[in-house]
Amino acid sequence: MEEKEISQAVIGRLPRYFRYLGELKDSGVERISSQDLSELMKVTASQIRQDFNNFGGFGQQGYGYNVEYLYTEIGRILGLDREHSFVIIGAGNLGRALGNYLNFERRGFIFRGMFDANPELYGKEVRGIRVMPMEEMEQFVRENCIDIAVLAIPKNDAVAVAEKLVHTGIRAIWNFAHVDLNVPEGIQVENVHLSDSLMKLSYKSAHAGSGF
Amino acid sequence: MEEKEISQAVIGRLPRYFRYLGELKDSGVERISSQDLSELMKVTASQIRQDFNNFGGFGQQGYGYNVEYLYTEIGRILGLDREHSFVIIGAGNLGRALGNYLNFERRGFIFRGMFDANPELYGKEVRGIRVMPMEEMEQFVRENCIDIAVLAIPKNDAVAVAEKLVHTGIRAIWNFAHVDLNVPEGIQVENVHLSDSLMKLSYKSAHAGSGF
Repeated sequence: MEEKEISQAVIGRLPRYFRYLGELKDSGVERISSQDLSELMKVTASQIRQDFNNFGGFGQQGYGYNVEYLYTEIGRILGLDREHSFVIIGAGNLGRALGNYLNFERRGFIFRGMFDANPELYGKEVRGIRVMPMEEMEQFVRENCIDIAVLAIPKNDAVAVAEKLVHTGIRAIWNFAHVDLNVPEGIQVENVHLSDSLMKLSYKSAHAGSGF
Repeated sequence: MEEKEISQAVIGRLPRYFRYLGELKDSGVERISSQDLSELMKVTASQIRQDFNNFGGFGQQGYGYNVEYLYTEIGRILGLDREHSFVIIGAGNLGRALGNYLNFERRGFIFRGMFDANPELYGKEVRGIRVMPMEEMEQFVRENCIDIAVLAIPKNDAVAVAEKLVHTGIRAIWNFAHVDLNVPEGIQVENVHLSDSLMKLSYKSAHAGSGF
């Protein structure tokens, strides 16, 4: 199956399909038509069919989709059929919040280490993981073949930390720092820029129904 | 100026322009060409010109853009020329992390209240704001004309809380719960679905350079 040409927009929608199919599966639903899925998810049925056609269509449209199969296949495409280890860099409120998300573990993302530059935090625990000094980060990531580094540190520190990570063999960075990182092509970055998101909300709120 | 037809994609890019222009401004840069901005932001100059043309173009291209003017105008379009009050619902790690973001305040988002259903948290403080019982949320939002409610609670509680918020006159919901909310059209919702973001990273990581 050729998956290389899939657009970012389609990829961006896959987790949402996965989430809805997981809920249908948990509710005992075995089959669903693109029409019913469309109503549930508030996207057009034609959008759903187009999206799924990128991956071969996932089964007969007339009979509806097999929920379990579709859930498993989309999970596989998302890379959820294997475990991913991650470390969190930054043991502040955000870092601790991310470390405590049990949901990530359910999806195969395994929390393996936590680092901070503040000595007062060394040895404190988040879900059984002790906070380690920043200096130990590179060696830990390398020796434990960590897949993902979560950056939950201020933007002024994030660039330098990302540069260090590049040399550890890390595959992916989940970046919560409010800065765009410059990393080599082979390393994947996904940004969660919270201020940007809040400004989008502000825009929508400022322009809603104002006839402006 | 007719701003009604601006696409979601353009709006989604405005906060990033705003961020880069703020950094240029802070560095004392007064003018920048679309070419230089393009290199800095790693988007094409033609994309920048197209985006800005949605708002009248922001000045002469030959002379470059006036950084301060562009920063102010984009800020105004984003609704950052006025204050927005917000409350945080959920005083767990994520809620506290969001309450502690001073950066939001710098942009005019004023943290006014915090609510939780757990009595053990009542009275605890986040940046001088005491955690209040959930039962007081509706009255507080109404009496204080709160603009934005931040939902930092589990998905099972989020739907019911969102329904209550609808009747308070709230204008916008910043939703961190892992569920899509059903609210009337006049209320703006911006979702931050962290699991979805992590799955996108997992997809990119699984498919990077694998020739798959």
